[in-house]
Amino acid sequence: MKKVDSLVKGELPALKINKSRIQNNIQELGEIGLSEEGGINRSLASQADAESRNWLKTYWKKHCEIGSFTDAAANLWGDYPYVEEKNLKPIIIGSHNDSVPEGGKYDGALGVLLATEIFQTLVENHVYLKHPLKLISLTGEEPNPYQISTLGSKVISGVVSKQYLAQFKHIETGESLGEAINRLGGNFEKLEEAQWPKDSFSAFIECHIEQGRRLFDSGDPIAVVKKITGIYRELVVIHGQANHAGTTDVFHRKDALLALSWLNIKLREYLKKINVSEPVVGTIGFAEVIPNAANIIPGSVRFNIDLRSGDWNLVKKVIEYLESLFSELKSQGIAATRKIILNQKPVDLNSRIINALSATIEQDSKLNLKVFTSMAGHDAANMAKIGQSGMLFVKSIDGKSHCKEEYSKIEDIEVAGNVLLKTLLNLDREIE
Amino acid sequence: MKKVDSLVKGELPALKINKSRIQNNIQELGEIGLSEEGGINRSLASQADAESRNWLKTYWKKHCEIGSFTDAAANLWGDYPYVEEKNLKPIIIGSHNDSVPEGGKYDGALGVLLATEIFQTLVENHVYLKHPLKLISLTGEEPNPYQISTLGSKVISGVVSKQYLAQFKHIETGESLGEAINRLGGNFEKLEEAQWPKDSFSAFIECHIEQGRRLFDSGDPIAVVKKITGIYRELVVIHGQANHAGTTDVFHRKDALLALSWLNIKLREYLKKINVSEPVVGTIGFAEVIPNAANIIPGSVRFNIDLRSGDWNLVKKVIEYLESLFSELKSQGIAATRKIILNQKPVDLNSRIINALSATIEQDSKLNLKVFTSMAGHDAANMAKIGQSGMLFVKSIDGKSHCKEEYSKIEDIEVAGNVLLKTLLNLDREIE
Repeated sequence: MKKVDSLVKGELPALKINKSRIQNNIQELGEIGLSEEGGINRSLASQADAESRNWLKTYWKKHCEIGSFTDAAANLWGDYPYVEEKNLKPIIIGSHNDSVPEGGKYDGALGVLLATEIFQTLVENHVYLKHPLKLISLTGEEPNPYQISTLGSKVISGVVSKQYLAQFKHIETGESLGEAINRLGGNFEKLEEAQWPKDSFSAFIECHIEQGRRLFDSGDPIAVVKKITGIYRELVVIHGQANHAGTTDVFHRKDALLALSWLNIKLREYLKKINVSEPVVGTIGFAEVIPNAANIIPGSVRFNIDLRSGDWNLVKKVIEYLESLFSELKSQGIAATRKIILNQKPVDLNSRIINALSATIEQDSKLNLKVFTSMAGHDAANMAKIGQSGMLFVKSIDGKSHCKEEYSKIEDIEVAGNVLLKTLLNLDREIE
Repeated sequence: MKKVDSLVKGELPALKINKSRIQNNIQELGEIGLSEEGGINRSLASQADAESRNWLKTYWKKHCEIGSFTDAAANLWGDYPYVEEKNLKPIIIGSHNDSVPEGGKYDGALGVLLATEIFQTLVENHVYLKHPLKLISLTGEEPNPYQISTLGSKVISGVVSKQYLAQFKHIETGESLGEAINRLGGNFEKLEEAQWPKDSFSAFIECHIEQGRRLFDSGDPIAVVKKITGIYRELVVIHGQANHAGTTDVFHRKDALLALSWLNIKLREYLKKINVSEPVVGTIGFAEVIPNAANIIPGSVRFNIDLRSGDWNLVKKVIEYLESLFSELKSQGIAATRKIILNQKPVDLNSRIINALSATIEQDSKLNLKVFTSMAGHDAANMAKIGQSGMLFVKSIDGKSHCKEEYSKIEDIEVAGNVLLKTLLNLDREIE
């Protein structure tokens, strides 16, 4: 057994992760939930979700000397075996193992497998750490049929109560969320046991694919995440007037889909105009036309508007612009009912972790330091509510994600793994 | 018994329909299929469809001395009792008694009830006609769960075969169209018996509500229909690219719903510009977004484009314009799959009937002659394929139709009934 401090006085061991091993593991875990179409289907509490958890537990036991533990929210935890000061607040690394329907091999799984690889590298080298180190695969991060996402981190950070979660059910089978959690080895009755008190860990670090194309466009393999985007979402119903598609002339229509079309075009034009300092995006991704018949003018249309930015003032600016668009529709006799269904402000990640990751990157002459906002929500945002939370992004080829074409190069993954490992060792030494 | 010719030499009897009686009948038939929401639900082969047929048969027998007959396609026929030359080709008047879901009291029923009122007026006055006169309530004119409209007139005019119709089934219950026809008193096995040879009737005249707002805007009670609109319809799939609604910036999206939005706006602008001589309309009434989730950029969208005009060159012009729009989308990397699913050219109605209706209107100093194209499809278009076919429109208040607010004033209905009665007597004398 070697101790970090005893190994190199004032310096860290030059450990490197094993590139071909992580590549193999991505491939192997990527077989679980693989459909004939080539996408990954590991939705919360699905058979494949359970199987992937078993794969992890088996691998950890066999290769990393890690004992696993499933908490009341079914988060899967692993403890690093060689720790000097067991009473210090732990460092946690990991991500999630579930996926969207027909998703890719990397979203979530990469962070869990890189954490696993770091554990395995440290164990192989018999490295003693100062702080307890925990590996986590979080429960139900993705949207799923139980209709709640980032479930595991919501429970850990205490942003949801057992009472609140008791209302969720599988939209098709009707199984309660509690039953699903119990099937995965959790204990819904004692859910509060999975919650962590504020400031009870030293650091939470999640490595994840970017899912966007900023790194793909700049050519850099990795980026440090400074904050998690704010998300504003409303459910809108535009009330036009259903009428005969033949006998109603084009000058006397209150076509709800045409009103949505106009709104969609104007919103996109405005978003392109104000995308200057910080990204801001807006999407109409869900829309239902009523009555939805070829020969009837759309009477109403029900849809979501989703707005995101790391700069909440930009989101507010877009909301103001939307107000003006809806006013204009109203003046044309087309009313709308609007309901805010999500109003999450951006979450700043921890500056100590941002600085630690940045310092590691700057020490490597082959790397440029990129620091930006995550435009997707992540478990790290919930974790940031109770402690020091940070994220590292790996380049997504072509920016693709949530689809079978999702891909990250093993060379970029290797860079991320080594930056994460080195930063972890630095933080372990630095943090009291 | 009085004979027309013997009654007034060279002149027609000054018969008038009974306004309060037709008003009562509209009210009474309008109780059948009335929902709690106030709409009429008399879809093909529904309980209410059968009940309304029984109401008609009972009324005809009790008040009009009419014996009824159901043909193999379940069209309900009534024969006028006092005819001089039984071997002449008959004159047919009527419309349909079925309705759209939550429709109004007038669409279809008005034409059948006005024809009934004319029969009753003639019978009460013991008028002998030269030609056999037939009253018809046509089977399944409206879109219905068996997915075929203007069914009765399609069979009469021979535009569909028994073999073709054998494939249609109720989309929910799975009952075959043949079984439905038989339930209504038809005989699907001997369907061909309902078909009429070409030029085997002297005239078919249908009175119907306009369903548009041209008469409402001009203030005239009635109009002569010169043709039935052409209808072109395509099923389009726009292929964009599904992607993360947060991480994909607004400059790198292939948003299928945004492409539809742009197409919809451009189409409407173009239609407004070319609406000069003859109405031309275009509608996207049916649209489905895929995958249709708030946080995913629409990957594809499936929709109908419905174009209509009495001037087929205008429809062709719009199709050419659509080509240019789809080319523009393609140049932006957004492909589309297009399939023509309806391509019905406009149908000219018979000039002799147009002239006869016009002459009657011009003789009345209180009426302006309005002659225009029907922008909705009608049974009269099928009937025109095998004989002399004509239509008279009654003003729709506010242009509303296919909804419970559908309404025509009894004063306008009275004008239509008297014009129809007088024209019928004229045609009976004129036609050899």
